[in-house]
Amino acid sequence: MLYGGIEAGGTKFVCGIGNPQGEVLDKLVIPTTAPKETLSKVVEYFMQVQSEHSLNGLGLASFGPLDLNPHSDTYGFITSTPKQKWQHVNIKGELEKALNCEIYFDTDVNAAALAEHRWGAGIDKNNVVYITVGTGIGGGALVNGQLLHGLLHPEMGHMRLGENNAKSDFAGVCPFHKNCLEGLASGPAIEAQWGIPAEKLPDDHPAWEMEAKYLAEGIANIILILSPEIIILGGGVMRQRKLFPKIHKHVQALLNNYIQKPEIVENIEDYIVPAKLDKHAGLLGAIALALNEGES
Amino acid sequence: MLYGGIEAGGTKFVCGIGNPQGEVLDKLVIPTTAPKETLSKVVEYFMQVQSEHSLNGLGLASFGPLDLNPHSDTYGFITSTPKQKWQHVNIKGELEKALNCEIYFDTDVNAAALAEHRWGAGIDKNNVVYITVGTGIGGGALVNGQLLHGLLHPEMGHMRLGENNAKSDFAGVCPFHKNCLEGLASGPAIEAQWGIPAEKLPDDHPAWEMEAKYLAEGIANIILILSPEIIILGGGVMRQRKLFPKIHKHVQALLNNYIQKPEIVENIEDYIVPAKLDKHAGLLGAIALALNEGES
Repeated sequence: MLYGGIEAGGTKFVCGIGNPQGEVLDKLVIPTTAPKETLSKVVEYFMQVQSEHSLNGLGLASFGPLDLNPHSDTYGFITSTPKQKWQHVNIKGELEKALNCEIYFDTDVNAAALAEHRWGAGIDKNNVVYITVGTGIGGGALVNGQLLHGLLHPEMGHMRLGENNAKSDFAGVCPFHKNCLEGLASGPAIEAQWGIPAEKLPDDHPAWEMEAKYLAEGIANIILILSPEIIILGGGVMRQRKLFPKIHKHVQALLNNYIQKPEIVENIEDYIVPAKLDKHAGLLGAIALALNEGES
Repeated sequence: MLYGGIEAGGTKFVCGIGNPQGEVLDKLVIPTTAPKETLSKVVEYFMQVQSEHSLNGLGLASFGPLDLNPHSDTYGFITSTPKQKWQHVNIKGELEKALNCEIYFDTDVNAAALAEHRWGAGIDKNNVVYITVGTGIGGGALVNGQLLHGLLHPEMGHMRLGENNAKSDFAGVCPFHKNCLEGLASGPAIEAQWGIPAEKLPDDHPAWEMEAKYLAEGIANIILILSPEIIILGGGVMRQRKLFPKIHKHVQALLNNYIQKPEIVENIEDYIVPAKLDKHAGLLGAIALALNEGES
């Protein structure tokens, strides 16, 4: 049983094939340039794959915002992304036409939540939140074992935080929202606040405590609104493992014993955890979408 | 087909019977005193009902926090409520034992979301958020047509807001959380901020604009995290219909066209709406729980 996956990212597309055990058997990285050029390379890759293997399904995990409403005229489109060339691109439809097969489609972060549920930190949990903290901040979720959609899909990175953590005159780097989580705590936000890229900041720099406070505030709100059974943090910034104990401490302080569950008041280190699939996270997310639909 | 419902509230219990059309056929209000006294009156009412009618199911919509995990030792209990006499009361178990029937049990706000989905403002929507704004603030939700639980259940009233709206030295009335939605925007919070009970404030008082800002900030975060298809607002404070256009304006300003859906950017008055079942909301919620389980 082989499944294909396409991780569509703002800087690169990752195409590959994997099996139901979550092993990646082949992989190709394609830089994200103009839609026509990038998508034609994706098609070329899977034409080659299809000539050698029979795929049981193909999944596409994409940056967004996306139109995931099957009843909409623009179902399968990337919609209002700041990446101008990719606005209103019918990514699902064009790939399906060229490859002559159905493609299972969702946001990169919903797909990552699904992959962590299947093979990673969220096994045995039916209510999973996955948050990526990198060049942007995004969140996906499984609720009662199903991907969370609704009107659109979660855009957790844009929730508004309190201002008390911020350096006095810093309202974030998000062009849409003052004091939103992504604007205050993404990689570019760290660099904008401190003048140094995150990966060059020393371990004892005050930036890390503030970063943990921002993320904790966002996570506390997610707990109060969505009540997940586990919160999984991935993305480049979260490779800084020193953030985890700080986040745990601040989430407990913010919730202040209001939610009296041992997962939060006692064993929070098993409740807010690093992603396990970080290496192939996006690609495995796409493969998990194909597997998920194949089974449903 | 008749169904029984129990709305368990902090000041009163409402017991009654209704039909699948959402009509309430009988109703009794019991003041909330000590658990033993109150519950024995509930039992007495339903003993009488059972002697006259055959009920197809009995639902219980309760104030919380509740233990809704069927695998827990304290499943069916009210847990860490500030109402001391009601802490750790096995409300579901005691009523089931006395009445010798299964009781379908959830939070008052999840039950209200379900009732609005069945008979009220959320018909035809499978992703519904219901928020009550009264002596407290609580939120319930349906996601993909199922009630939202997870680790616990939503406690949306306790999400933290930014401080910029607050009167300079006011951090809210919540004993647990500084600057949380309930602490800043519940009925008691309005009175604490302005020294006048909400229902006595004139229509042009600045309190209303601030109240709308608080609620809009909470609602914007809920949209970004949960992506509901409709947000239904009930409870005593929301009887002030003048709040709705103010909330619509502030939610649009906060989201700032980031979520380009007509429901938000064009027709927000059909997206953030008053509860339709306000009169019997709690009781109909309890009856909806019984109906829901009967069908599943």
